[in-house]
Amino acid sequence: MCEANVYLTSGAADEEPELYLSAVDEILPDGENVWKLKSIFGEQKVLAGAILSMNLVDHRILFRKLSVGAG
Amino acid sequence: MCEANVYLTSGAADEEPELYLSAVDEILPDGENVWKLKSIFGEQKVLAGAILSMNLVDHRILFRKLSVGAG
Repeated sequence: MCEANVYLTSGAADEEPELYLSAVDEILPDGENVWKLKSIFGEQKVLAGAILSMNLVDHRILFRKLSVGAG
Repeated sequence: MCEANVYLTSGAADEEPELYLSAVDEILPDGENVWKLKSIFGEQKVLAGAILSMNLVDHRILFRKLSVGAG
């Protein structure tokens, strides 16, 4: 299966990104800098952030945290 | 390998999305609605568009075409 793990960072250089949702299959935009995520297990979360990088072979997608509406 | 195929659409309902780049490993933002794509074969392209959907298990990422600078 080719799902990815979604990580969040505040953007600070010394910060280790936190795992936000693992085994994500589906990512859909839901407004400016808001994303609906769904894992292969059916877990759904809504994330406010901007995409910093996607490395699909590494199963890794990194978002920078934003406040809703700050987009 | 868990790369994805990137498709582009103008957003018209009757339009079949076109394959823009296959076997994409890396997607990095390069400004507002501009994305640098790199395939597992090392091919690189720069896309102006907004993400419409990502379905990673289906290896499918769909962008809506935008003109550069149209934000």
